[in-house]
Amino acid sequence: MSEIRRDIIIGRSIIIASNRAKRPKNFKNKDEIKGSNDCPFCNGFREDILLEVIDQNPSSIEGKNSWRVRVVDNKFPTLKSTGKLTEYNHGFFQKMNGIGQAEVLIESMKHNSSLGSNSLDHTIGIITALKLRYEQLAKDNRLKYIQIFKNFGAKAGASLEHPHWQIIGIPIVPLMVKEELEGVNKYYKQHHNCVYCDMIRYELADNQRVIKENEFFIAINPYASRYPFETWIIPRTHQHNFSDISKKEINALAIILRDMIKSFEVGFKDLSYNILLRTAPLALKNQQGYHWHLQILPRLNIQAGFELATAIFVNPVPPELATEELKGIGII
Amino acid sequence: MSEIRRDIIIGRSIIIASNRAKRPKNFKNKDEIKGSNDCPFCNGFREDILLEVIDQNPSSIEGKNSWRVRVVDNKFPTLKSTGKLTEYNHGFFQKMNGIGQAEVLIESMKHNSSLGSNSLDHTIGIITALKLRYEQLAKDNRLKYIQIFKNFGAKAGASLEHPHWQIIGIPIVPLMVKEELEGVNKYYKQHHNCVYCDMIRYELADNQRVIKENEFFIAINPYASRYPFETWIIPRTHQHNFSDISKKEINALAIILRDMIKSFEVGFKDLSYNILLRTAPLALKNQQGYHWHLQILPRLNIQAGFELATAIFVNPVPPELATEELKGIGII
Repeated sequence: MSEIRRDIIIGRSIIIASNRAKRPKNFKNKDEIKGSNDCPFCNGFREDILLEVIDQNPSSIEGKNSWRVRVVDNKFPTLKSTGKLTEYNHGFFQKMNGIGQAEVLIESMKHNSSLGSNSLDHTIGIITALKLRYEQLAKDNRLKYIQIFKNFGAKAGASLEHPHWQIIGIPIVPLMVKEELEGVNKYYKQHHNCVYCDMIRYELADNQRVIKENEFFIAINPYASRYPFETWIIPRTHQHNFSDISKKEINALAIILRDMIKSFEVGFKDLSYNILLRTAPLALKNQQGYHWHLQILPRLNIQAGFELATAIFVNPVPPELATEELKGIGII
Repeated sequence: MSEIRRDIIIGRSIIIASNRAKRPKNFKNKDEIKGSNDCPFCNGFREDILLEVIDQNPSSIEGKNSWRVRVVDNKFPTLKSTGKLTEYNHGFFQKMNGIGQAEVLIESMKHNSSLGSNSLDHTIGIITALKLRYEQLAKDNRLKYIQIFKNFGAKAGASLEHPHWQIIGIPIVPLMVKEELEGVNKYYKQHHNCVYCDMIRYELADNQRVIKENEFFIAINPYASRYPFETWIIPRTHQHNFSDISKKEINALAIILRDMIKSFEVGFKDLSYNILLRTAPLALKNQQGYHWHLQILPRLNIQAGFELATAIFVNPVPPELATEELKGIGII
């Protein structure tokens, strides 16, 4: 059973996942990733399906059970779904039990598929499935935040090679989300406008960091990029929650997301990356402050002592140069 | 010339080190670390020495120019030492020029030396040299914080194999340091005591996470450890600044630091780790709030999307188990 411990000084939360405890000698020194041998996602956890997107025209894979996207329970959940959320004093410290929901979206039947080479319909299926699961988990009133993300490649912390996303419902609002909300609200009070909306306007006019735009979305390398080639995909309409996305917008997001990832796949060799959904906490559903977006974080360098100590990232690639290079790849 | 850009939403600072700019194809996919061939630290940058600790009894290395520890200017500085600190509006955003000081402490003449196998005198020399450089940089009134840290091993982001530390003077107080200070001050207001002092008392009484103690220092695996086997070395006397350390305390720190690192070297195979100094900002010199300490962060796992998105770390090793395992190695 995992537990959520609170750092008494900064107030940050740490999940102690003792069900995965390892002794010193059991830590391997190579980046571990499970390949195609006995890949659990290739057979798609048939017995345990929460949601399925069926492919009407399976061209390359035979059999009547073919599917495009499946969402299943995470077999090694960071947080467990059963039980009542309880906070404890633990001597000098505080903790709560590790209640939550952990699901996996299997992106394709094919082990070697990629987000950049899927059909548009397939990508629409992925985003729609993520939205449906988000809405489902949002009904669990023990949860305060739902984090959707994708780890791709060993350097991005993926433990399985087969392309997948994760959906984790957590019983607290993460400190990082709180900080972002504070910043957004502070800006709103000063300028009577959403900082993301204003930033979109500025970036479109300045045109130095805009990689791609369509009717509903804009892809930029943010001004204060933490990672080389860090990319944000932001809806042009002010929406605080990912689940506000319309059908038309899902189509537009599918195009821009697929083309961005394809650019990374073509421009870089064996790139590991994370995709993070940034969205408002569940309890803020009806507030105006936040503006959801996706962050693509290429994992090209390692965070060393300076970054860990200060949280000041050192980025060797100015975002203006990143935009030029990403456009130069010729996909978008 | 590097610049410090401000994230408009969260207020975090990012160093854009454009002098190191790389194109997509130039990013290698292996952890890059420079080995012993043409190692710049083996010849010790003779022409450029800021400080030197001489070995009176060089037993294994011949020549009258033998030395134990050298501090030199960083040839590839993150921040440059010349110029006047200036803040600019950059359209919608803000930035300042990348003023600072970047120095390297070469830990030994020997390429294959290690912090765990150095003599006690040698380790005392390292700590003393760090203190002297800290005091020297603290005189530069453009600087607001001095970050001392060590990257060891490719997985900890070290670019050179030869053991070394880095000392970087920065013109801002990092957001992470500000947050920690806020937490410390909040606790102080509530309890009229230092949170670190109270934690030391509790940990010694509870005795589940204390790895080692001596007259002046205590080594613990903190209750809310972010990293497997994360270890903090904290002075028992309430000192807000690293440079408050006395000669006696340097001796005691040398013993506990060497023994902790030796435990990691013996217990783990080819462990990469960071050591971070946590100390008060320069402007807080005469305040009571902070309590400096060292953090040793073993780099056994990769931070994946969930951690990057939420800043909630998932740690598979409960600190109580880490303490048991570290003691079981038999060095301390």
